[in-house]
Amino acid sequence: MSNKLRAAIIGATGYGGVEVIRLLLAHPNVEITSVISSSSAGTPIADGYPHLNEIMVGNLDGIDVELMKQKADVVFMATPHGVAAELAPKLVDAGLKVIDISGDFRLKSGEVYEKWYKHKPADPAYVEKAVYGLSEVFDDEVRDATFISNPGCFPTATLLGLVPLVDKGWADLSSIIIDAKSGVSGAGRGLSLASHYSEINENFLAYKVNKHQHTPEIEQVLSRVAGEEVVVSFTTHLVPMTRGILSTMYVKLNGTHSEDEIIEMYRQYYEGRRFVRIRQKGQWPATKQVWGSNYCDIGFSLDERTGRLTIISVIDNVVKGAAGQAVQNLNLMMGWEESTGLAFTPVYP
Amino acid sequence: MSNKLRAAIIGATGYGGVEVIRLLLAHPNVEITSVISSSSAGTPIADGYPHLNEIMVGNLDGIDVELMKQKADVVFMATPHGVAAELAPKLVDAGLKVIDISGDFRLKSGEVYEKWYKHKPADPAYVEKAVYGLSEVFDDEVRDATFISNPGCFPTATLLGLVPLVDKGWADLSSIIIDAKSGVSGAGRGLSLASHYSEINENFLAYKVNKHQHTPEIEQVLSRVAGEEVVVSFTTHLVPMTRGILSTMYVKLNGTHSEDEIIEMYRQYYEGRRFVRIRQKGQWPATKQVWGSNYCDIGFSLDERTGRLTIISVIDNVVKGAAGQAVQNLNLMMGWEESTGLAFTPVYP
Amino acid sequence: MSNKLRAAIIGATGYGGVEVIRLLLAHPNVEITSVISSSSAGTPIADGYPHLNEIMVGNLDGIDVELMKQKADVVFMATPHGVAAELAPKLVDAGLKVIDISGDFRLKSGEVYEKWYKHKPADPAYVEKAVYGLSEVFDDEVRDATFISNPGCFPTATLLGLVPLVDKGWADLSSIIIDAKSGVSGAGRGLSLASHYSEINENFLAYKVNKHQHTPEIEQVLSRVAGEEVVVSFTTHLVPMTRGILSTMYVKLNGTHSEDEIIEMYRQYYEGRRFVRIRQKGQWPATKQVWGSNYCDIGFSLDERTGRLTIISVIDNVVKGAAGQAVQNLNLMMGWEESTGLAFTPVYP
Amino acid sequence: MSNKLRAAIIGATGYGGVEVIRLLLAHPNVEITSVISSSSAGTPIADGYPHLNEIMVGNLDGIDVELMKQKADVVFMATPHGVAAELAPKLVDAGLKVIDISGDFRLKSGEVYEKWYKHKPADPAYVEKAVYGLSEVFDDEVRDATFISNPGCFPTATLLGLVPLVDKGWADLSSIIIDAKSGVSGAGRGLSLASHYSEINENFLAYKVNKHQHTPEIEQVLSRVAGEEVVVSFTTHLVPMTRGILSTMYVKLNGTHSEDEIIEMYRQYYEGRRFVRIRQKGQWPATKQVWGSNYCDIGFSLDERTGRLTIISVIDNVVKGAAGQAVQNLNLMMGWEESTGLAFTPVYP
Repeated sequence: MSNKLRAAIIGATGYGGVEVIRLLLAHPNVEITSVISSSSAGTPIADGYPHLNEIMVGNLDGIDVELMKQKADVVFMATPHGVAAELAPKLVDAGLKVIDISGDFRLKSGEVYEKWYKHKPADPAYVEKAVYGLSEVFDDEVRDATFISNPGCFPTATLLGLVPLVDKGWADLSSIIIDAKSGVSGAGRGLSLASHYSEINENFLAYKVNKHQHTPEIEQVLSRVAGEEVVVSFTTHLVPMTRGILSTMYVKLNGTHSEDEIIEMYRQYYEGRRFVRIRQKGQWPATKQVWGSNYCDIGFSLDERTGRLTIISVIDNVVKGAAGQAVQNLNLMMGWEESTGLAFTPVYP
Repeated sequence: MSNKLRAAIIGATGYGGVEVIRLLLAHPNVEITSVISSSSAGTPIADGYPHLNEIMVGNLDGIDVELMKQKADVVFMATPHGVAAELAPKLVDAGLKVIDISGDFRLKSGEVYEKWYKHKPADPAYVEKAVYGLSEVFDDEVRDATFISNPGCFPTATLLGLVPLVDKGWADLSSIIIDAKSGVSGAGRGLSLASHYSEINENFLAYKVNKHQHTPEIEQVLSRVAGEEVVVSFTTHLVPMTRGILSTMYVKLNGTHSEDEIIEMYRQYYEGRRFVRIRQKGQWPATKQVWGSNYCDIGFSLDERTGRLTIISVIDNVVKGAAGQAVQNLNLMMGWEESTGLAFTPVYP
Repeated sequence: MSNKLRAAIIGATGYGGVEVIRLLLAHPNVEITSVISSSSAGTPIADGYPHLNEIMVGNLDGIDVELMKQKADVVFMATPHGVAAELAPKLVDAGLKVIDISGDFRLKSGEVYEKWYKHKPADPAYVEKAVYGLSEVFDDEVRDATFISNPGCFPTATLLGLVPLVDKGWADLSSIIIDAKSGVSGAGRGLSLASHYSEINENFLAYKVNKHQHTPEIEQVLSRVAGEEVVVSFTTHLVPMTRGILSTMYVKLNGTHSEDEIIEMYRQYYEGRRFVRIRQKGQWPATKQVWGSNYCDIGFSLDERTGRLTIISVIDNVVKGAAGQAVQNLNLMMGWEESTGLAFTPVYP
Repeated sequence: MSNKLRAAIIGATGYGGVEVIRLLLAHPNVEITSVISSSSAGTPIADGYPHLNEIMVGNLDGIDVELMKQKADVVFMATPHGVAAELAPKLVDAGLKVIDISGDFRLKSGEVYEKWYKHKPADPAYVEKAVYGLSEVFDDEVRDATFISNPGCFPTATLLGLVPLVDKGWADLSSIIIDAKSGVSGAGRGLSLASHYSEINENFLAYKVNKHQHTPEIEQVLSRVAGEEVVVSFTTHLVPMTRGILSTMYVKLNGTHSEDEIIEMYRQYYEGRRFVRIRQKGQWPATKQVWGSNYCDIGFSLDERTGRLTIISVIDNVVKGAAGQAVQNLNLMMGWEESTGLAFTPVYP
């Protein structure tokens, strides 16, 4: 009998869930004991994802809390908004470790959740319990957690780019503008004209301008770090590629700080954190340089003409922006080295 | 004998030049009499561009001012930076109409040109003569011109999005941030790792951050319209697609203006100008919606939380951003309807 | 009052229909008087296709034979399989010219239709009436037609590549293998996982192997030309691009014929037909070289080691493979020059 | 001190070499001790490949046989044609294990090599020594080898699809046609118009029709397996994607064999070989289903109308078609489990 940690994955027919499978298959301390899909329960896992042929045998389970209690120690939830709000509390009560990749437990205010998500918020008692899993910022909390709310993809790239500057007090908090761009996998596997090949190929567009539900998540964290309320301009764009997020951030500096000073400050902030790579002066990261990996790469350009700092941050939205960060959080919760099972090189080209 | 206007095209082996050919082939009042390439003179035009087989027969000419004087009434220059600086004055002196698609005559200050382009500037006398061909803004000047300096691709999309707001005095001039994105054809046909397929496909990146040579061009026009010096933050990104520019602009408003009011103001500004389409409230344009055409589509989002207006402007960089605008300028110079030969529908999908 | 030919387009919310709109908007002898969609009747045409903003104003009509009779002289049908089977006979009976872009009237045998399309075939009397609109092969019939069945996209590229060789008797009829590749727009605008961006981008696959419904269409024409029954191997693949078909054909030669001889024979076969371009020896066409245009480009490679001729044929599937060929057929039916409104250059790059 | 096998990689600035780095970094039994590039020796490895920042520190070595002898036990050669021909013999003589990913030692006949590669062939004594590393076919030889000639990317996909049928005697050897398609990374990192983004995006084309240098490699292996000379038709196409090869093969069957029977025969042939996955009836593999992995997936369609079997085989050209197969060969040479360090799941989507 294996003494590995047993993991169940809910929502395994979506891109987030199937990436958790890929990552856990390579994890030395974890075994997948249940792959769960409410819509396809009872059918072979590889039917919907032929790349898993001969790798994942067996059928999808349905959603059944008792069964999960028997089969699993930890549950990854990669479900659409609203599902975790109902299900996660039951799993938490059943004594399971839970890592929720959806947005249901990220916003501490139910009112704000409802305004941006247009859904009923989750039970505040459980929202309170959920630890926001941006481990490079909230390391101690993550290590003590049993219930993680995994950050959104845009907030991950954006916050890792902004937090050190805000934390240090070098940012004019009223000046923050975030222009974010994402590959199409961020929209998931659900069919829509907005992810129909012939509409999106050879096309670039903005969407949810000033209305994206990740806005309050970014503001919540920046406000907490700053110790005062921060409001940002946040616009998202769709890039004709599958994976990758690049966030371009514009901030007026408080005081005078050279690029060298800024780079050094970021390097200190992230010291010992393997998955954040601060680029040297004059280099800006490209999404392909972190493709398929858990890295977040960050570069800077200080414009003396305008006094604004431009920060460029990139991640693979499916890895660091979802499944990879979830596994990283598991590692920390379990007291394992944070890169266990995640220490792979980006796939290039 | 034809009484059409006779056109020569210099730099016909680049993407801008070959697009001028495509457009002029469909123009009812113009005939192409000479296609010129210094590097490939004497070889068949279709050799480097097999899509022109049986459409353009005959060989490429070399650069020869006397020959152009004999064969042409107007010369389109689609050459790398520095070539037009030397050649255009000779063509102007020879009495030819000249439309220069390069950046050589756009910046009125030689010092500024040298700083951003790292080239010796053109003769100031001819820089003075050159009319900046953004005809939706400088219509009267274009109609009287014989020597046009055609706007850059990023400035075209950006200025058409910003000028009415600045002209009206509704923009906080110190607040302008421009986050621009371009397809790869903007980099031309010259080989480089930055346009090597395997490096750029499934990749998104920023480049020339705060350093793009189109920055002073945008500032020069905004300053002229505003009547005071305007400085902007301008960052460019590369999108894994061939054609299209989308410019996202962030501006603090002076005073209170509703989205409806702003849209109405833009519609009035561009009244009668066929190629600028102002989108209705809540709709933002995508690059594919102007693909292959001379349109510039503009949409808005006013964020009451931050007081910032987000403006989204799209063009096809090879058409409205280069060859199409050049032909539009020719139409105006000749007193023809501005859409002559350009009234085609975007290719969709 | 205009004396242009009045055209109605049914199925205008699909890619084929919207391309007919684009082409007819540029046609000097035709005006669009009705754009018809059963699903979106009563809504503005540009709602579903914002690239048509300010170009096509007015609302979509519903399907109404009486209305079409009043408003139109010719009806283009770009509807899913099965719709034209019911509707086209009524339009024909109403005295309208009809050009059907669907597959409903292509196969002369109802039995064969039912086997491959899994639909009830159309009324044989009307199938009989319908002229197969491959005008480079059946020119005389097309010129006399009032009811055209427009060829499929794969058959167009394939038959233009094979017919001269079969007609001349140079092909071993038992040896024909066709390996065809198509961009994703061929699958239309209907949502499916098979055209979901993240599934198709950076992917290449075969589909309907030996089962594609265009197989009997190709065989019907080759058999008619050969005067005996021809059976072919036909496999289709999906290319991660929007537009374009490339058909690679393998044929054993009867007798000995040099590449030069073959090229010369094809040039004679297509003499005077503007839209077929035979490439010179050693050059093979790429889909991008006909992008957005009505051309079909064909190249050859004779392998002396195997005695097989490889034929490469490319088209833009939405133009020559659908809407463009339909307009070309209209031109011939009306006695106009075949390239009227279609004489535009491929868009490159 | 580590007791891992020490590996050097020559040609580390190309895509094949950099993929060997990625794979060996994840290999439990191997450490990379030298990364070699003649053109960039002395510069940091991550300069040309920023995705390796903080992963591979240190500088590139130059080509120096003595140094390799000191630092390495095995040398991977990922160099352009012609380099290994000169260098590999020296490394072999120095007692190093050598795995050559180039084509220099694949063809047993120098005359054939010269005809197809237009290069002087390598020394026949070493060509003789080199073992062709298609381990699913020549397992025993690979296990005993110290000098491996790694198969080409197209031959790998094609031969794994054809060999069992030929070996069993079920193929009409005169009937074999191979229509192969590759992503652009197969062309390497060297700049050329044929891999310039704007030329290749939204484009599909055939190249080297009947002239590809992988033709004799395929024929050599099929002839060896068949015990008689086999000649094939082989055409290659370029797909607008980075990674992936799909080979469509057409073969007339000898005798009558059902699809079930064929599938069963292939499964038996590849029994115990983890990296070949035979698809169930009615399913054909897509390149994305093996993306980033060492799998080769194979599917079938038997056409009773023509008596031809269509075989579809896919690989990731950079992994199974180059670096992954090289590491698999190392594993076998070393007596390790063949999937050591290679047991990762394809990246999807």
